[in-house]
Amino acid sequence: MRDAALERLLERFRAGEVDTDTVMQYIKKLPYDDLGFAKIDYHRGIRQGFAEVIYCASKTTEQVREIFRRLAERSDHVLATRANREMGMAVKDVVPKAQYHEVAGLITLGWKRTPESAAGEVAVVCAGTSDLPVAEEAAITAEIMGSSVTRVNDVGVAGLHRLLGELHRFEDARAVVVVAGMEGALASVVGGLIDKPVIAVPTSVGYGAAFGGLAALLGMLNSCASGVSVVNIDNGFGGGYAAHLIASQASAR
Amino acid sequence: MRDAALERLLERFRAGEVDTDTVMQYIKKLPYDDLGFAKIDYHRGIRQGFAEVIYCASKTTEQVREIFRRLAERSDHVLATRANREMGMAVKDVVPKAQYHEVAGLITLGWKRTPESAAGEVAVVCAGTSDLPVAEEAAITAEIMGSSVTRVNDVGVAGLHRLLGELHRFEDARAVVVVAGMEGALASVVGGLIDKPVIAVPTSVGYGAAFGGLAALLGMLNSCASGVSVVNIDNGFGGGYAAHLIASQASAR
Amino acid sequence: MRDAALERLLERFRAGEVDTDTVMQYIKKLPYDDLGFAKIDYHRGIRQGFAEVIYCASKTTEQVREIFRRLAERSDHVLATRANREMGMAVKDVVPKAQYHEVAGLITLGWKRTPESAAGEVAVVCAGTSDLPVAEEAAITAEIMGSSVTRVNDVGVAGLHRLLGELHRFEDARAVVVVAGMEGALASVVGGLIDKPVIAVPTSVGYGAAFGGLAALLGMLNSCASGVSVVNIDNGFGGGYAAHLIASQASAR
Amino acid sequence: MRDAALERLLERFRAGEVDTDTVMQYIKKLPYDDLGFAKIDYHRGIRQGFAEVIYCASKTTEQVREIFRRLAERSDHVLATRANREMGMAVKDVVPKAQYHEVAGLITLGWKRTPESAAGEVAVVCAGTSDLPVAEEAAITAEIMGSSVTRVNDVGVAGLHRLLGELHRFEDARAVVVVAGMEGALASVVGGLIDKPVIAVPTSVGYGAAFGGLAALLGMLNSCASGVSVVNIDNGFGGGYAAHLIASQASAR
Amino acid sequence: MRDAALERLLERFRAGEVDTDTVMQYIKKLPYDDLGFAKIDYHRGIRQGFAEVIYCASKTTEQVREIFRRLAERSDHVLATRANREMGMAVKDVVPKAQYHEVAGLITLGWKRTPESAAGEVAVVCAGTSDLPVAEEAAITAEIMGSSVTRVNDVGVAGLHRLLGELHRFEDARAVVVVAGMEGALASVVGGLIDKPVIAVPTSVGYGAAFGGLAALLGMLNSCASGVSVVNIDNGFGGGYAAHLIASQASAR
Amino acid sequence: MRDAALERLLERFRAGEVDTDTVMQYIKKLPYDDLGFAKIDYHRGIRQGFAEVIYCASKTTEQVREIFRRLAERSDHVLATRANREMGMAVKDVVPKAQYHEVAGLITLGWKRTPESAAGEVAVVCAGTSDLPVAEEAAITAEIMGSSVTRVNDVGVAGLHRLLGELHRFEDARAVVVVAGMEGALASVVGGLIDKPVIAVPTSVGYGAAFGGLAALLGMLNSCASGVSVVNIDNGFGGGYAAHLIASQASAR
Amino acid sequence: MRDAALERLLERFRAGEVDTDTVMQYIKKLPYDDLGFAKIDYHRGIRQGFAEVIYCASKTTEQVREIFRRLAERSDHVLATRANREMGMAVKDVVPKAQYHEVAGLITLGWKRTPESAAGEVAVVCAGTSDLPVAEEAAITAEIMGSSVTRVNDVGVAGLHRLLGELHRFEDARAVVVVAGMEGALASVVGGLIDKPVIAVPTSVGYGAAFGGLAALLGMLNSCASGVSVVNIDNGFGGGYAAHLIASQASAR
Amino acid sequence: MRDAALERLLERFRAGEVDTDTVMQYIKKLPYDDLGFAKIDYHRGIRQGFAEVIYCASKTTEQVREIFRRLAERSDHVLATRANREMGMAVKDVVPKAQYHEVAGLITLGWKRTPESAAGEVAVVCAGTSDLPVAEEAAITAEIMGSSVTRVNDVGVAGLHRLLGELHRFEDARAVVVVAGMEGALASVVGGLIDKPVIAVPTSVGYGAAFGGLAALLGMLNSCASGVSVVNIDNGFGGGYAAHLIASQASAR
Repeated sequence: MRDAALERLLERFRAGEVDTDTVMQYIKKLPYDDLGFAKIDYHRGIRQGFAEVIYCASKTTEQVREIFRRLAERSDHVLATRANREMGMAVKDVVPKAQYHEVAGLITLGWKRTPESAAGEVAVVCAGTSDLPVAEEAAITAEIMGSSVTRVNDVGVAGLHRLLGELHRFEDARAVVVVAGMEGALASVVGGLIDKPVIAVPTSVGYGAAFGGLAALLGMLNSCASGVSVVNIDNGFGGGYAAHLIASQASAR
Repeated sequence: MRDAALERLLERFRAGEVDTDTVMQYIKKLPYDDLGFAKIDYHRGIRQGFAEVIYCASKTTEQVREIFRRLAERSDHVLATRANREMGMAVKDVVPKAQYHEVAGLITLGWKRTPESAAGEVAVVCAGTSDLPVAEEAAITAEIMGSSVTRVNDVGVAGLHRLLGELHRFEDARAVVVVAGMEGALASVVGGLIDKPVIAVPTSVGYGAAFGGLAALLGMLNSCASGVSVVNIDNGFGGGYAAHLIASQASAR
Repeated sequence: MRDAALERLLERFRAGEVDTDTVMQYIKKLPYDDLGFAKIDYHRGIRQGFAEVIYCASKTTEQVREIFRRLAERSDHVLATRANREMGMAVKDVVPKAQYHEVAGLITLGWKRTPESAAGEVAVVCAGTSDLPVAEEAAITAEIMGSSVTRVNDVGVAGLHRLLGELHRFEDARAVVVVAGMEGALASVVGGLIDKPVIAVPTSVGYGAAFGGLAALLGMLNSCASGVSVVNIDNGFGGGYAAHLIASQASAR
Repeated sequence: MRDAALERLLERFRAGEVDTDTVMQYIKKLPYDDLGFAKIDYHRGIRQGFAEVIYCASKTTEQVREIFRRLAERSDHVLATRANREMGMAVKDVVPKAQYHEVAGLITLGWKRTPESAAGEVAVVCAGTSDLPVAEEAAITAEIMGSSVTRVNDVGVAGLHRLLGELHRFEDARAVVVVAGMEGALASVVGGLIDKPVIAVPTSVGYGAAFGGLAALLGMLNSCASGVSVVNIDNGFGGGYAAHLIASQASAR
Repeated sequence: MRDAALERLLERFRAGEVDTDTVMQYIKKLPYDDLGFAKIDYHRGIRQGFAEVIYCASKTTEQVREIFRRLAERSDHVLATRANREMGMAVKDVVPKAQYHEVAGLITLGWKRTPESAAGEVAVVCAGTSDLPVAEEAAITAEIMGSSVTRVNDVGVAGLHRLLGELHRFEDARAVVVVAGMEGALASVVGGLIDKPVIAVPTSVGYGAAFGGLAALLGMLNSCASGVSVVNIDNGFGGGYAAHLIASQASAR
Repeated sequence: MRDAALERLLERFRAGEVDTDTVMQYIKKLPYDDLGFAKIDYHRGIRQGFAEVIYCASKTTEQVREIFRRLAERSDHVLATRANREMGMAVKDVVPKAQYHEVAGLITLGWKRTPESAAGEVAVVCAGTSDLPVAEEAAITAEIMGSSVTRVNDVGVAGLHRLLGELHRFEDARAVVVVAGMEGALASVVGGLIDKPVIAVPTSVGYGAAFGGLAALLGMLNSCASGVSVVNIDNGFGGGYAAHLIASQASAR
Repeated sequence: MRDAALERLLERFRAGEVDTDTVMQYIKKLPYDDLGFAKIDYHRGIRQGFAEVIYCASKTTEQVREIFRRLAERSDHVLATRANREMGMAVKDVVPKAQYHEVAGLITLGWKRTPESAAGEVAVVCAGTSDLPVAEEAAITAEIMGSSVTRVNDVGVAGLHRLLGELHRFEDARAVVVVAGMEGALASVVGGLIDKPVIAVPTSVGYGAAFGGLAALLGMLNSCASGVSVVNIDNGFGGGYAAHLIASQASAR
Repeated sequence: MRDAALERLLERFRAGEVDTDTVMQYIKKLPYDDLGFAKIDYHRGIRQGFAEVIYCASKTTEQVREIFRRLAERSDHVLATRANREMGMAVKDVVPKAQYHEVAGLITLGWKRTPESAAGEVAVVCAGTSDLPVAEEAAITAEIMGSSVTRVNDVGVAGLHRLLGELHRFEDARAVVVVAGMEGALASVVGGLIDKPVIAVPTSVGYGAAFGGLAALLGMLNSCASGVSVVNIDNGFGGGYAAHLIASQASAR
C-alpha cells in the first residue's frame, strides 16, 4: 500500500485542495498491489511456521543457493524440492543449518522428523521401495509445514496381510497420503478400509504399459472407494501439502 | 462373529472335551467375517447420520426402488446418485419422504439444504452454468453426509472480477470443491487465492479438444497452485464426499 | 484330402503309367487343405464336448438363426455370444432346446450350469453388480466348454472383508477369472492372495477417466501381483475360454 | 502365530482364571499376522522348489547383493530380474553358485536349463532375434519355477513356413508364451493353430508408431484367436510365471 | 485458357499495336486457371474410363441425386461412396442405369463386376464377414476405375489353413488390398507370403481395446512384412483406389 | 462503484468526522466489484457495436429465448451460437428482427452480411463443403462483431489450382480464417502463400483415424508455415472472433 | 522470369517467324517459377526489414554458419532459432555483428531490444521462470521482425495479484503472447481480462501428467476466454511471429 | 523336399513292399518345409537382383559384420538398414566393395545410384532437409532393389512454388514416395497433383505436438487426396521397398 501517497492526497482533500472526483479517480486507478491485498500478496508466506518453497527443477545451482539463502534470512522454515546433491551441498555452504535429503531430493531448513512412536496427523503409506523417494517427499513436506507424520512403507496389495497388519498405525490419521506406482491399487484398498480423506499420489514406477505413471493415475482417479482424490504423477510435494492442509483444518477455526 | 459356535467350542475346551490344538486350529480357520471385523464390515454404514449410497447408473428402476426402500428402513439418510426421473418417481412411491433432484440426478432421504446465509464448512464453486449438475451433485452429497455447504456459481476465470467478488463467501470454508469444464483453470486460480484444501472436479463440458473432460482433468492435475487434488471427470459425488471427509476431520478427535 | 484322386494317381504310378517325377510334382502342388490338415481345419470343432462358437455382433438375426441351426445339427454344444433378445428368440424357434441368457447376451445349446455346491475348476470372481454381464459371459463360456465354475460376485476391493470371506470358495480352482471395471484393482488383490493363474477381464464400467475400460485395462496389465494375464475389455468370452483351456490342461495328457 | 500367548490364555481360561468374554475379545483383536495366515504371509515362498524373486530395477547393486545373499541362505532357488552385469558380478562374489544371464538380465540360483530334446511343459515362442531378451527372461523364469521349457526362436509371421515347420515342437506344451514386438501378429497365428493357453508378451521392439510396444499390446489384446491372454510390455518374467502356474495345474490336485 | 483474349493480344502485338512489355505484363498476371493447367484442373476427370467420385457422407439426399445426375450426363462411370439406401433410390429415380450396393454403401454407374473365374489385377482379401462392407467398397472402387478384381473372403489368421488354401487365387495380382479389423494381423501374414504391393485397410471391427480401429491401424503400420502400406480406418475406397493406381502402372507407359 | 457510500464517507472525512485510518481501511476492504473495474466487469459488453454472445449448447430453448430477449433490449447486436432450429424459432417469436442461420447454427440480431464484391478485412477460407457449417459460424461471428468478410469455399489442397485461382480474393485481408478437416493441410498451404495472420480452425470432418478432428488439430499445430495459430476443433466462433480482434487492431489506436 | 527467352520468342513471333500456336504452347508450358511469381518465390524475404530465418535444430554447426553468413550478405536482419552455444560462436566468427542469445537459443543480426519504458505493440507475458526461454524466443522474434515488445515475466495464476498489478503494462498492446506450462491457465485469465488477440504458447514445463506440454496445449485450446489461439508446444518463434504479423496489420494498408 | 526319402518310399510302394495307406499317411505327415515350398522359404531371396536385407538396429557390430559377410558370399546385392558408422566400417573390412551411407544409415553391396538425368520409375520427394536421412533410406532401398530413382528435395508446402516448379521431374514416375515430418501436408498436395500411387512416409521431425511423428502420420492417413497410402514413422526402407514393388509390377507379367 502506497500509504504515504494516498494519505497525502487525503490530507490535501481534507484541506480542500483537491475535490471528491479527484480522490475517487485516484482510488479507482490504484494499481492492484498498491491496495495492500496482503492476503493475496503474502498469503502463503506470512503465516508463522509455514515453509517457503523453492522448486529447483528448472533452476541452476547458483539460483537455488541464492534464493534459499535469502528466504532463510526471513523465515525459519524453508523447503526446496527436486534438488540434486550438488544443490544440497551448495545450500549447506551458505546456510549451514540446512539439511539435504538425498532420497527425497529435498533441502530443508527447520525440519523436525516425527518420532517413530507418534501417531501422526498425516500418514504416508507407500506401496513399494521404488516409491519411497516420492513418499519421503510427501512426508517431509507435511512435517516442515507443521504436521506430524506416520510413515508406513512397503505395504503393496500383492501382500495384503502386510497392509492389514499395519492398518492400526494410520487409521486414525486426519489425512492419508497413499503413494503407489504400477496399477496404484493401494489407494482403493486403503480408501475402502478407512474413513479418512485419502490423497493418492501415482508414481512413474512400472514398465511398459505403465506409460510413465498413467496407469496408476487412471487407476486412482477411477478408485471404487469414496474419499480418494489424486495429485500429479510423482508429485510427493503436492500430496504432502494437501494432506497438511487437511490435517490443519481441525485447529483452523 | 459366529459367537455361539465358538463359545460352545470354548465351553467344550474348558470341559476338557477338546484339546488346545483343536481350538487353535479352529481359530486359525475362522472365516474373516466371522471374526467380527465390524469396523470393516459396516465401517461406512454404522456411523450416526452418515448416508447410505446407491449408485443407480447400472441398475434398473425396480432395483433402485427396492434397494432404496430397504435402506430407508434402517437408515435416516439415504443417497442415490446418477438417478433418472423415472427412478426418482419410483422411489417416492415407496418412500414418500424421499426427494428427487432433477438437475443433480440424485434421490435423497433425510437431506437438509444449507441456508443461503450460512458460512458452510464446505464450499462448492462452479465455473459455468453447464457445470451446475455436477456441482449440485457435490453440494447435496456433502450436505446429506452432514456438512453445511456454501454454493458459489458461475465464477469462471473468463470473468475474473466475479470470482474475486465472491471470494469472501468461501475463503473460510474447510474444504473447497471446484467444479469446472473446458480448461479447468478455475481450480488453479482458486487454489492460488486461498489456503484451504481444494478438491477439483473436472467436467465433460466443452467441445472438440476437450476430449470429454480430459483437458480439464489434465489441467487440474497440473495445477500450478499447491493444495489442489482431483477426482474423476463429472464425479460430483466423489468431490462432495471427499470435501465432507476433510471438513469432518475438525471435530473427529 | 482328395483321397480318391491321389489314390488313383498312386495306383497309376504303381502300374507304371506315371513316373516318380509326376507323383512328386503332384504332391508338391497339392492345395493346403487337400493335405488333410485335420488338426488345423477342424482343430477346434472336432473334439468331443467342445462347443461351436458364433459371434453375433455383426450378424443379422436371420444369419444367427441359420448358423445356429446348422451347427446344432452336427454338434451337441453350441454357443452364440453378443446375442440380443430377438436373436435368442429366433434361435429358439428353430432349436427348441437352445437357451437364451439375457444378462450375458448368450445363446447356448447343451449347457449345464455348475451346481452351487460344486468346487469349480474355474472360478469367476466379479467386482460389482455392473460387471455381472461380462462375468456371466465368462462363466457360461467355461461351463459349455466343459469346466465346472464357481461364481463369486460383488467382492470389489472397496469392501475388502467380503473378498476375504469368500476366498476359501475359489482358492483351489485351477484358473480364476477376475472381472472388474473402474480401476480393476481386484485382479491385483486376488493375484496376491492365491497361487493360481488369474485371467483378468477389464470391463467398460466406470465414468469419465475410465475411458471405456482403459483404466481397468492398464491397471490389470500393470498388476503388482505375478501370474495375472489380461484379455480385451468386456471380453468375458475370452476370459472364460482361456480359463477353461488352463483348467483342461490337468487332464490333457 | 503368537502360539505361546494364545495358548497361555487358553490354559488360564481352562483353569477358570479368565472368562469366555475375555477370550472372545482377545481373539477378535488378534493382529492379522498373528493369526498365522501362513498361506498369505509366506504363500509364495514356502513351497518346495519355488523361487524367491528380486526385482532389481529400482535397487542399488549393494541392495541386490545383500537381498540375494540372504534369500540364498534360506532357499535353494532364487531369481533376480532386470539385473545389469555389475549386479550379476556382485552377487556371484557372495553367492558363487549364482549364475548371471546377460541376455535376459537375470541372476539365478538353482536354475537348470531344460535339455534341447525335452518336450517342455511350457513353450516360449519368439518372433525375432530382437525379442530374445524378453523370451529368455520368460524361459528361465519358468525353468527356475520348476517347469521344463521348449524354446522356439525367430518364427515371426513374415516367414510363415518357419513357424509351421516348428509347430510340432510346441503344440503339446501345456502353456505357450508368445513373445513378439512390432505388430505382435504371432500371438494370433499361434493361437489359431493350437488349442493351448497362450500367454502373449508384447515387446517394445519396433520403430515409430510402435509407440514403445503399444501396437503389439493392442494387437495381442484384440487377437482374433481365442485363448490368448496378455501381460505387460517386455514383461518376460510375468509371461514365464503365468505359464508355469498354468503348467503346474496338471499336477496340483 | 482464355485463348481468345490472349490470341487477340498477340495479334495486336504482331500488328505493332502493343509493345513487348505489355505482352509480358499480361502473361505474368494471367490468373492461374487462365493459363490452362489442364493437367491440374481436370487431371482426374478427363481420362477415359476413369470414374467421377461423390462422397455422400456429408451431403443431403437431394444434393447427392443432383450431383450424380449431372456427372452422369458427362461421364460413363460415376461412383458415390458412403451412400445410404435412400440416396441410392433417389439416384436411381433420375439415373435408371445406376446401381445401389447396399453392403458397400455405394452407388455406381457403368460398373461391371469381375467374373468369378478371372484372375484379377487387383485382389481384395478380407479377414472376416464383419469386414465385408469395407472390402466390397474397395473391390467395387477398383472395378469401376477399370481393374479386374479377385475377391477372397473370410481368411482371417485364426484359421490359417483357409488363407493358405486360397493363396494361389491372388498371389499373381498386381496389388493386394487386405481388409481386417481386430488386430489386423492378416496384412502381415499376406505380406510375408507374397511379393506384391499390399495396401492394408484397417477396419473398426472389434471391441474394447480395438479403440475404433486403432489396434488394427497400428498393427498394420508396424507390420513385420515389407511392402505393406496403410490407408485410413474403414477407408475401402482409398484402398481400392490405390490398388487400381498400382495395377494400372503396368500399362501406363 | 458504490459511489454514494464512498462519497458520503469522504464528505464525513473532509468534515473531520472520521479520521484517515478509517478511510484507508474502508478503501482497502472495498469488494472488488465495488471498485468500479468497469473495464473488467463490462469490458466485453459496453463497447459500441460489439455483440453479446450466448452459448446455447447447454441451455434449454426457454433459457435461450429469455436470455436473447433480455440482451436484445439493451444491445443492437446479439449472437447466439450452437443453436438448433427450435431455439431459432423460439427467439424469433420474441425478437422478430432476429435471424436464424441453419447451416451455422447461429441466431443473430443486427447482423449484416458482407457484399460479395467487398474485399473483407477478414477472409474465411474453407477446404470442403463438409466444413461449411464451421466456416459460416466463423464468418457470421466476424461480421456481427463488425468486420467485413470474404468467403472462399471449397479450395482444399487436393485440387490446388482452385486455391491458387482464388488467392487474389483474400491475400489482402488482415486476418485469414482457414477451416479444414481431415488432415488440415490447407492451413499450411495458405500460410505459405500469404503474409497475413492465419487462424486455423480444425473440423471434426473425416473418418477413422481423423479421431474427431485430432488429425487436423495436430496438423495445424505443426504447420511448417509461420504465422499460423489454432483454435479448438469445430470452434468457428473462436476463429471468427480472433480474426475480428486482429482485423480491428488496425483502427484501435 | 526467363525474360530473354520469352522476349526473343515474341520478337520472332512479331517477325512472323513463329505462329500464334507456337507462342501459346510456349506460354502454357512455362515452368511455374519462370513466370516470375516473385510474390511467392521471395514473398517472405524481399520486404524491407523482415528477417531471414534459419531453423538450426537439424543442421550442423558448419551448415548454420554458412547459411547465416550468406544470408547476412544480402539482408540486414537474420534470425537463427534453436541454436546451441557452439553454433552461436561459429556464426560470430564469420558475422561479428551477430549476437547469440543463450537463454532463447537464438542468433540474431540486426536485432534491437525494445527499451523497458516503451509500450510495445506486442506483449510477451510469461507464467514462470521456467518458461522464460520460450518467452524470450517469442520476444526477440517479434523484435527482429520489427515490432516493439513489452516483456511481463513471472505472473502465473497461482499469484493472481502479480498479474493484476502488471495488467496496465500490456493491455494496450496489439497482440499478446502468453507463454505458460503446467496447466496453461494464464492464457484464459489474460484472455478474460483484455480485448486483444492472444497467442498462447504452451510449454513443456511440468511433470508427470503434463505429458510434455499436452496438458497446457489442451488447456489453451479449450480456453473459456474468446480471442485465444494457440501455437505448438515450446514454439516461441511461432508465437512471436504470429504476434508481429497481427501487430503489423495496423499499418499494413 | 526330402526327395530321397519320399522317392525311396515310392519305389518301395511301386515294388509292392508298402501299401497305399502307408504312402497316404506319410504324405499327410510331411513337415511343412519338407514339402519344398520354395516359393515361401526363399521367396524373397531367390529372385535375381533382389537384395538381401539386414536390420541392424538390434544387433551388435560383430553380428552385422558376420551376417553381411555371409550374405555377400551368395548374393550380389545386400542391404543393411539402421546401421551406424562403426557397423559400416566393420563391414567394409570384410566386404571391401560394400559402401556405407552415413546420412541414410545404410550399408550396401551392389548398389548403383541413378544418374541425375534419368527419369526414375520411383520418385522420392522430400519436404525438408531434416527429412533427408529418411528420404535417402527410401531412395537407396529402391535403387538396390532394382528401380531407378528421381530425388526431389526440399519442396515443402510452405514454399509451394518450389514444388510446382519440380513437378515435371516426377509426375511420370510409376510410384512416388513422399517423405515429410511436421504436419505432413506434402503427401496431400502431391497426391492431389499427380495420378500415381503415392507412398507417404511420415518422419519424426517436428517439435512439441508433433509427438514423434504422430501428427504427420495422422495427417497422411487422413489425406484428402486419393491414392495415398502410408508406412510407419521414419520407415524410409518400407517406403522405398513398397515403391519398388509397385514400379516393378509393370514388367512383372
